[in-house]
Amino acid sequence: MLKEIALHRSVRHFLSREIAPEVLTDILQAATHASTVGNMQLYSIIVTIDSRVRAELSVGSLDESAAMEAPVLLIFCADVHRFSKWCRQRDTKPEYENLMWYAHATADALRAAENAALQAESYGLGICFIDTVLRSADRLVELLDLPQGVLPTAVLALGHPAEEPPLSDRLPMEAIVHYDRYNRITSAEIDELWAERETSTQTMELLNRYGVENLARIFTEYRYPAAENLNSSKRYLATLREQGFLDDKE
Amino acid sequence: MLKEIALHRSVRHFLSREIAPEVLTDILQAATHASTVGNMQLYSIIVTIDSRVRAELSVGSLDESAAMEAPVLLIFCADVHRFSKWCRQRDTKPEYENLMWYAHATADALRAAENAALQAESYGLGICFIDTVLRSADRLVELLDLPQGVLPTAVLALGHPAEEPPLSDRLPMEAIVHYDRYNRITSAEIDELWAERETSTQTMELLNRYGVENLARIFTEYRYPAAENLNSSKRYLATLREQGFLDDKE
Repeated sequence: MLKEIALHRSVRHFLSREIAPEVLTDILQAATHASTVGNMQLYSIIVTIDSRVRAELSVGSLDESAAMEAPVLLIFCADVHRFSKWCRQRDTKPEYENLMWYAHATADALRAAENAALQAESYGLGICFIDTVLRSADRLVELLDLPQGVLPTAVLALGHPAEEPPLSDRLPMEAIVHYDRYNRITSAEIDELWAERETSTQTMELLNRYGVENLARIFTEYRYPAAENLNSSKRYLATLREQGFLDDKE
Repeated sequence: MLKEIALHRSVRHFLSREIAPEVLTDILQAATHASTVGNMQLYSIIVTIDSRVRAELSVGSLDESAAMEAPVLLIFCADVHRFSKWCRQRDTKPEYENLMWYAHATADALRAAENAALQAESYGLGICFIDTVLRSADRLVELLDLPQGVLPTAVLALGHPAEEPPLSDRLPMEAIVHYDRYNRITSAEIDELWAERETSTQTMELLNRYGVENLARIFTEYRYPAAENLNSSKRYLATLREQGFLDDKE
């Protein structure tokens, strides 16, 4: 397996050392080599060290230290704005501000982001995707001055690692991979497939830290509680609409 | 730059030769090494050679030959179903069937898909992302028997390449990369940044083939015309709702 893929882990503590400009350029170039829908390149990357962006992404985040310490953050945005502007300038009418093209543009942004992550890791840098990007989408629109047709979809923190965390424990491949059609998992299979994760050292540490009796509760009650999910999702929907991806035609 | 990233291109014609099982396993394993939100692994991969799936993805697609010829298709789905079922089985209440978690799960699926693509390319296989996946989401839900909380977000065709197409021409990196905040592109910059693509050999061939006077029109009038975009996006929104990602609370 490609070394960068095999050894990928999320790094959340970084040295203060800067990333060499030519290395950053190469990482950004690698991002642009990813497939994009129709070769339309419906994404943008914002390179930032803005402390307000860091602070926004950090609030209540598992990745707080990554957002604060990384010498640079890359904000990957779904972007139909640039392409649409080009179309209008060429006297033809674009129609990409809608939900399906938000999803296409998001796919472009994520493929580019994953390329950037692996390229960074090939230089020995550490990376972390910062998941609060969606919860903070409305604030990031303001802070980064994103026009209609642009929405942040992934944030990559990168820098020289100050730690070497273990690889994440994963479910067995059988939990993820289906053949021919979707295999509706049974209760017995749930128990079987989760058994290893539920008894791993990482899980035992978490149960102790949170003082709960099972791993699922850490997710539903502490990390991503129901009320917060619903509230954040409502705000996300409103931001999607404000940015023009869910307009009156839908 | 990583060789697989530097040399990535979309391959749309494949030999009939099968992919060795251990190679396919390695590709699927590589997918599972990608970062996922909170290590929740909110995605599934369906390995299929179903001719109805191929036919559905092919209709009016630029990637028709890839969908038909590839010895295997990997369907990457955003999936909160499995995780939610696990939570319920552990006597706690999940709340992930909403728009924000659709976006999180989509991100998981796309990062996994890009890993799979690069891993496949490291074995000398050719890959193509098939963009009709979104337009066909409702039909794929039926054909693959996807439960609530699952939606297809990327399709990867892969196989031994029967062609070596040129790398795609891309906009200069300055079109994609912004510093500190979003740079609203000017009309002069549009002309400048698109100049090379608009006069490339690939573009000249396209203009001849479609018989139109500029590249933008190929996109807006032939490849992704407005009426079709709006129609497909409406269907996509309905599918998103049916699959439980936009419920009554929103």
